[in-house]
Formats: sequence, C-alpha cells, structure tokens
Amino acid sequence: MAEIAVLGFGVVGSGTVEVLDKNSAKVAKNAGQNIRVKYILDIRDFSDSPFHSLFVNDFETIVNDPDISVVVEVIGGVGVALEYTQRCLEAGKSVVTSNKELVAAHGYSLLKLAREKGVNYLFEASVGGGIPIMRPLVQCMAANQISEIFGILNGTTNYILTEMEKNGAEFEVALKDAQLKGYAEADPTADVEGHDACRKICILASLAFGKHVYPDLVSTEGIRSVTKDDKFFASELGYKIKLLGRARVVGDKLYAYVASHLIDKEQLLSGVEGVMNGVVVRGNAVGDVILCGAGAGKLPTASAVVADIIDAVKHLYARKWIGWEDGDPALLADPAQLETAWYIRTDAPKAKIEREFGDVIFAGESNGTIAFKTMMLSGKKINDILARGIKPLSIFRILV
Amino acid sequence: MAEIAVLGFGVVGSGTVEVLDKNSAKVAKNAGQNIRVKYILDIRDFSDSPFHSLFVNDFETIVNDPDISVVVEVIGGVGVALEYTQRCLEAGKSVVTSNKELVAAHGYSLLKLAREKGVNYLFEASVGGGIPIMRPLVQCMAANQISEIFGILNGTTNYILTEMEKNGAEFEVALKDAQLKGYAEADPTADVEGHDACRKICILASLAFGKHVYPDLVSTEGIRSVTKDDKFFASELGYKIKLLGRARVVGDKLYAYVASHLIDKEQLLSGVEGVMNGVVVRGNAVGDVILCGAGAGKLPTASAVVADIIDAVKHLYARKWIGWEDGDPALLADPAQLETAWYIRTDAPKAKIEREFGDVIFAGESNGTIAFKTMMLSGKKINDILARGIKPLSIFRILV
Repeated sequence: MAEIAVLGFGVVGSGTVEVLDKNSAKVAKNAGQNIRVKYILDIRDFSDSPFHSLFVNDFETIVNDPDISVVVEVIGGVGVALEYTQRCLEAGKSVVTSNKELVAAHGYSLLKLAREKGVNYLFEASVGGGIPIMRPLVQCMAANQISEIFGILNGTTNYILTEMEKNGAEFEVALKDAQLKGYAEADPTADVEGHDACRKICILASLAFGKHVYPDLVSTEGIRSVTKDDKFFASELGYKIKLLGRARVVGDKLYAYVASHLIDKEQLLSGVEGVMNGVVVRGNAVGDVILCGAGAGKLPTASAVVADIIDAVKHLYARKWIGWEDGDPALLADPAQLETAWYIRTDAPKAKIEREFGDVIFAGESNGTIAFKTMMLSGKKINDILARGIKPLSIFRILV
Repeated sequence: MAEIAVLGFGVVGSGTVEVLDKNSAKVAKNAGQNIRVKYILDIRDFSDSPFHSLFVNDFETIVNDPDISVVVEVIGGVGVALEYTQRCLEAGKSVVTSNKELVAAHGYSLLKLAREKGVNYLFEASVGGGIPIMRPLVQCMAANQISEIFGILNGTTNYILTEMEKNGAEFEVALKDAQLKGYAEADPTADVEGHDACRKICILASLAFGKHVYPDLVSTEGIRSVTKDDKFFASELGYKIKLLGRARVVGDKLYAYVASHLIDKEQLLSGVEGVMNGVVVRGNAVGDVILCGAGAGKLPTASAVVADIIDAVKHLYARKWIGWEDGDPALLADPAQLETAWYIRTDAPKAKIEREFGDVIFAGESNGTIAFKTMMLSGKKINDILARGIKPLSIFRILV
C-alpha cells in the first residue's frame, strides 16, 4: 500500500480524493497496490466532509512522515506551493501537481531537484485538464522531431468566444454569462488576458523543445479585442476565432506566443468549442496529432492528477524521464518575424486598402467598418503598411 | 546500445528503419542509449537499399542472436508472424508490432507468453497508426472507469465516405478514386466490409475492459450500403455518415460492433475527414477524450512503432503493464438490445411511416425514396416495426 498526502482541498484537491475513493479498485489494479490518502492539508474547516479525519493543518506532519511517498500539491500559485514542493522533493517524496503557474515559472529547477533526489515531479494536470498530453508528447511521439505545438489551452476564453459566435454576443455579455455559469472567475484577468494560456504553452514548449520557456518572455495577447463584428466577418471568410498558444521551430529559431487567431472551419481544431481544450502536436514522422477534451473542471483535472499519482507510485524507485534544460532570454525569437496571413478590420476606405495591400479578400462591410484577409506577411511588414494610414480596429493572425 | 531486428521490409518496416535513422539523435536521447538495427528479415531483393548490408533471410539468425533484445514484427497476418512472435518472446526478446490482425486474434496468449518470459509485447501502431492511443488509455486514463470507446478506425473507408460527401459521388466511384490514390487496396474487402475496423475495436475493447474481445464475435457491417442519397439525406438532417467501431458497457453488459453511423455535425468526431482516424474514450472522471491523427501511412505508423521500440528498450528488465484476461463467446451481449435513434431510407409511403413509427423527423424525398430519423428504439424493436411492411433501403444507427 502506498500512502499519500494532498496539499489543498479546493476543487482539484477534493476531486482527487473523490476519484481515488470512487475508482479505488481500478486505481489499485493499475498501480499494483492500494493507494491511501493519509493526510489532507487544509486550514479550512471540513468537519462535515466524509474525509474529515484525514485533515491536518501542519505541513511538518506530512513532510516528516516517512510513510508518505507521494505528495499532491494542488494549492496553486508560486508562494507556499513552491516552498512545500521543494521541501517534499528534498525529503525524497515524489510530487504530483496541477499547478501550471508553478511549473511554468519553476519547472526547470523543480525537475532538477527531483532528479537529484531520485524522485518524480509530475504535472499532467497542469495543461489541458484531463486530456492526456504529457505522455503522448514525451513517450508516444518520442520518435519525432517536433516542429510545432499549439492549441486552445484555456476553457474560459474558448467558452466566451463560442458564446459570442453562437449568440452574436459582445465580449462583455459573454464574459458575464461565463461568470454566472462558473466558467470565469470574478477577476477574469488571468484567463481573458491570455496569462493562463501562456503558462500552458510554456510548459508544452519546454517539454517539446527541451529548454525552459519562461512566461514573461512570451508575447501574450488575450481576447478582449475580439468583437461581435469580428466574429461575424471571420465567419463570412470561413473562419472561427480562437485563442491559441503556439510554440514553433522555424529554421533554427524558436517562437512562442499567445494570441487570438482565425482558424479555418474545415480544420478539426475549430470544432473544439465551449470549455473544451484541444492541442495539436506536429511531428516529422507522425504529422499532426490532435488531443481534445475537458480542459478544466474538478473531475477531469483530478483524473490527470490521479494518473500521475499512479505513475509516481509505480515508479517510486525509478525516475520517469521528464525534464528540460534551463532557458534564457535569448531563447525566443520575435514572432513579428514570422509570416502569416492576417485578418484586419478597419474604417479605412476600400480603395486605400487595395492600394496599400494589393491582393486581399474582403469579408464585407458593417457599421462603417470593413474587414479583409491579407496574403502572407510578417508582423513587421504589416506594421509598415498599416503605418501608411490604415488604422486597424482589430488585427489577428490566421492559422495557416 | 540496444540492437534490434525488423521482420518484414514493407511499408511499415521500411518506415521504421527510416525513422530510426533520420531521428536517431532524438530516439537515442529518449531511449537513453543508441538503437541500432542489426538485422532486417526479408526474402526480397533490396540490394539497392542503403540498408542492404542488414538484410538476412533466415529467421534463425535473429532468434538465436543473444544481442537482439527487441524484435519488430511488421510482416502482418497470422501465419508466420504468429510463429515468429511466439519464438521471439520465448527466446526472451521483446516484440513490437503494428499487426492488428495478430493482436486482435492472439493478443491474450501473446501477452500471457510475454509476461511469463518477463518481456514486453507492444502494439501501439496496431490501432490508429501514429495516434497515441494505448498509453493515453492505459496510463493517462488509469484513474477512470471506461464506459465506452469508439471511433473512426479505418482511413480507407473514411476517405471514401468523405469523398462521397464532398463530391456527391456514389460508393463505387469513390472507391475507385481511393484505389487510384493508393488509399484502398485492389481487394478492398478488409477495409470496406469493416473487418479492419473490427480488429482495431477488439484491441481497444480488450485494453479498456480487460478481457479479450475476439473479432469473430463482433457484429460487423461495412460501408457498401451507404449511398449518395444517404449522404444527402443525412446532411439535410445535420449529420455526417462515418464507419464506427464501438465498444460499450451498458449496465453489466459489454457490447461491441462495427457499423456506419450518422454523427451530428456539431460533434468534433464528425470533423475527422479523409484518411484521418479519431478515437473517443469516455471515462467516468475525465469525460470524453478525443484523439485524432493519421490512422495509417508509412511514417505515422513507423512513429508509433519506434515509440514502442524506445519503450521496450527502456523496459528491458521491467514489464510495462499491458494485458488482459481471456475472453469467451458469452462475453458480448447482442447490440440489437441497445436503444438508439435510427436513420432509415425507404420507398414506403410517408403516411405508413408516420403510422408505424409515430414521431419521426423526415429529411425530404428524392428519386422516389424518403429518409427519416426515428426516436430511441432498440434494434429488435425496429425490426418488429419494419416487418410490418416498411422495407429499408438503408438503415443506420445515429450516434446519440
């Protein structure tokens, strides 16, 4: 029997304990032994919980208990979660987490520490909730050179964009609806500004390309600038608008960025709607692999946490090969160097657009604005053209 | 350094050698050591091949070489492939394969033999080409009770159905096109009659539910009965027609079947077009996980084979937990017991259809035939109704 501790009894923590309890037979079979939650660390009162006898409020009880081989960190953030993770790894305990903020900011050093201590630091749940991503990327595509990994990594923004499309709603209206339904937080900044997607693409890029990609170096735009009109025009052109996190190798350079994109309706990823997430991995042997599912939520995220717990229990005396080298500010090239097709909405006259851009495809006009799709142009080039008197009301990349 | 042998230098065998060669640095990094192909077994003449010095034509050379730790069986079929696989496992060598026919027919006994010998029998490439399926199912979803696994498992039939949809072509025309493009074989029986999809759903069902599901017990229909008219009517109703392999637990019974289905265009799986494959796994914690990619082809399949080679090399002295119990004829229940909505095309009069079926949704009429969608009915019940004088020209399940 393996004994574990869960740090934090919020949504993911309680889901983890619930899945371990509900599916205990399946979990035991796959782990080769029973897994017992010995402690739950949370200072709040859970005296009504069926698990109330497991609660402790002193981390020292856990870190000093030699029977605890695996610790689940689902506290979130980079404060106490960082400290506890370090101390557990130092004490020779494997750590499983869904904490994308911590992995994105400190993954390199925590993986290094885990390696030094001969234990595992696993974080499948940190990206894409319950969608299997880490193992497919690290193991199943182990024979591939990865050229690109990208996807719809944030369920809140995808829900908002889907609602805007379906109901012709403006951003603020769809955001309120998402908040009412519990898909968006009262302060939605981390989601709608793209920070959450940024952390996730950093983790995926680090895994795919072998060097830590730090979030503060990644160009990040959210979805606030997407309007009802943009949704309409994009649809006319045959596209949906989705927030994508992307990491690409072009030539010998690595690019990572988060931005709203137009995706062709014929592409499978455009069908990833609502709170679902979808990740595309492009390998030189396998081509495109697309992984989709619930990107968040109590039980889906817990599903990934428990899969990692099982793996940690099975590998108490062997290390899973997950890791990457440290990154540095020079690692990423400027995505404005990359050529792509662009969607632009503006109130500039049609004749001027045609004069400055040459070949474009117009989507139509509405409320005195006009939208069009350009040929392949770099971000630098398009800024030069726009500077000649075409003020963009919206400008988004098209996924090509 | 690990030394391996490849049995069969056809499409997948040559792709495997190519991927090992082209991506050797990445492969070595992930395997923790270099992997060298020492022998290729094929009796044909490959004197022009850059790998010509590796060819042998005597299996004894390979099975008796103690340096060979992993053997790749990409011969296909259940004849010599079965014999060689047994002998390699008995000789203490791990075996990696893309041979779905062999795994579907003899997976239980081969996995049992591998376990007895302390080696691995791995077959990620046998289902869905390069799409990661085995590890996501066995490892990433290890915390879930699986209630259903289903998908588009055959690229040839999906290409034909996609072409019929796009070009309004009849089956025979689309089949010829697929043959010209190399997506269908001269004798397309195994694909268009559903046998290939059947083998794959048997492998997935065995993995997901823990007992060997033998292909000859699985109700299997192909796509020959899908007409241009059906494609048109289905589209009118908001559906695409896809060949699905399905395995489901309903109550305490297991059902497995292969048949053409109508899938709502809003569902992501309906967007899996052409030679792509897509698999949906439904777990009680994670919900639906959808895995898509190239379901066949030289390099995609080789990508999965090489991933298994890497895993076999990393686990020479430890076994991967993959296995299932033996199945028996009583394992599967009759899918005609299951309720679903149905699509029916007939030349019966509309008034009679309404009288016999009650609430239905009509798709319209064409060439003297009429198509409609029923409410939820079991296969047995629908046969009773049809026996009252409604002759179905086509009848398909609707994925609900």
